[in-house]
Amino acid sequence: METVSETRCFDGVQGVYRHESTATGTPMRFAVYLPPQARRGPVPVLWWLSGLTCTEENFITKAGAQRYAAEHGLALVAPDTSPRGLDLPGEHDAYDFGSGAGFYVDATQAPWASHYRMDSYVTEELPALVAARFPVDPARQGIFGHSMGGHGALVMALRDPDRFRSVSAFAPIVSPTRVPWGEKAFAGYLGDDRAAWTAYDAAELAADSAWRAPILIDQGDADPFLGTQLTPEAFVSAAQAGGIPVTLRMQPGYDHSYYFIASFMADHMAHHARLLAR
Amino acid sequence: METVSETRCFDGVQGVYRHESTATGTPMRFAVYLPPQARRGPVPVLWWLSGLTCTEENFITKAGAQRYAAEHGLALVAPDTSPRGLDLPGEHDAYDFGSGAGFYVDATQAPWASHYRMDSYVTEELPALVAARFPVDPARQGIFGHSMGGHGALVMALRDPDRFRSVSAFAPIVSPTRVPWGEKAFAGYLGDDRAAWTAYDAAELAADSAWRAPILIDQGDADPFLGTQLTPEAFVSAAQAGGIPVTLRMQPGYDHSYYFIASFMADHMAHHARLLAR
Repeated sequence: METVSETRCFDGVQGVYRHESTATGTPMRFAVYLPPQARRGPVPVLWWLSGLTCTEENFITKAGAQRYAAEHGLALVAPDTSPRGLDLPGEHDAYDFGSGAGFYVDATQAPWASHYRMDSYVTEELPALVAARFPVDPARQGIFGHSMGGHGALVMALRDPDRFRSVSAFAPIVSPTRVPWGEKAFAGYLGDDRAAWTAYDAAELAADSAWRAPILIDQGDADPFLGTQLTPEAFVSAAQAGGIPVTLRMQPGYDHSYYFIASFMADHMAHHARLLAR
Repeated sequence: METVSETRCFDGVQGVYRHESTATGTPMRFAVYLPPQARRGPVPVLWWLSGLTCTEENFITKAGAQRYAAEHGLALVAPDTSPRGLDLPGEHDAYDFGSGAGFYVDATQAPWASHYRMDSYVTEELPALVAARFPVDPARQGIFGHSMGGHGALVMALRDPDRFRSVSAFAPIVSPTRVPWGEKAFAGYLGDDRAAWTAYDAAELAADSAWRAPILIDQGDADPFLGTQLTPEAFVSAAQAGGIPVTLRMQPGYDHSYYFIASFMADHMAHHARLLAR
């Protein structure tokens, strides 16, 4: 692992790091914010998963989360959204598939299966690296994200309530098997057998998940993707049927941008801090 | 004036606008954040001047200022840092001269004098446009900025204490006539006669300025430009001799980035809010 940069921020350190990933077979970058409390010992760690087209940089420059991380004493980890440095056929042709659009799955279809393994990368390889190199407490982990990253966060939390204590999402793709973004990505990465898709669909997972902590979702009602790609009510229905408490807040006038994310970041950070403090 | 975008942010609106500037003879973009309080009537207006290489976008995406603007009920206006869309000889060859580096002066030397008139643009043309089109109170204006923009903010405030009630700066160039960035820019824009430069040197202006409100300056002590380009003590000395109260805070470990700016934005916004509330 090499240090790309380490910058003082809200009395903590915003770092960007690079390593050779065995999961993706490529170099990967990720960002870690350590709050000032980390100088005295391990702190809870909150994972952020970004949306389509993002790298590890968007969240750390635009979301304004470090202020709250410093207040609450939480570390933040933000991975990239896909392998980089490859040139697979068609990899860079669309914003919603290939580079910048890994969808947090382990691809099973050629040529993606050799590298597009963002599920293994985010849930196995990177947590082990972070736990080994940074003062974080693996017993206190939360996860959140935006859009495609909200999908990833919800799926990972519902699948693994023993690892994560808290989850929230901004404008998440909650049922990728039923919307165009997800259908395109899953067909490409996972193939035509839709039975294989449901393991990555939060609305499907909610019915049988052991997750019981309250989930916070914010969704702008002026989001241009609402209704077609984003169907938050589908998740609320599924979660309620599965006994999972969800608060969905429809935010009037807000769109899909980081201005929306920044506006409600304080609430999400407080949500995680409360659940991770236990 | 045309609207490039208007986006809900912290219950207000972050806008980006475009107009044909008579001062620069080019199209210009600028950003305006209106807090929720502006829906009920005019609010004080705080000008942000950006540093080298920036456009109107850096501040509004990275500084995290909207949260505080919404809390205090302040409008924020962020101009671009130079004319755009030209292709003057050498204009785009260096990061510290020409495009992205207007230095908030009215150039007197060819070929810059026809377009590089950022002083007139920022102090005359844009304020008139903003006052005509947005619910702001021209009697309550403040100004702040970063690096080259800190220079611009200090110069404009010291020169015009009747217009501005508050000023602050992050890592400002306080004496451009005595550091390489300023010498290069002023020689190019203003010519070899150094007597013409002093009108744009905050440390020079401090001696004779009628400014009396407290000035806040934050400077990171790990800023790579400190000492060579940034000489904040020179301003403190000049201001003290001129009877101007200055607080210079040397911030340990902080560099020249927006991570530094964001870390202390709350204090700067509170400084301006206090002086603009009167």
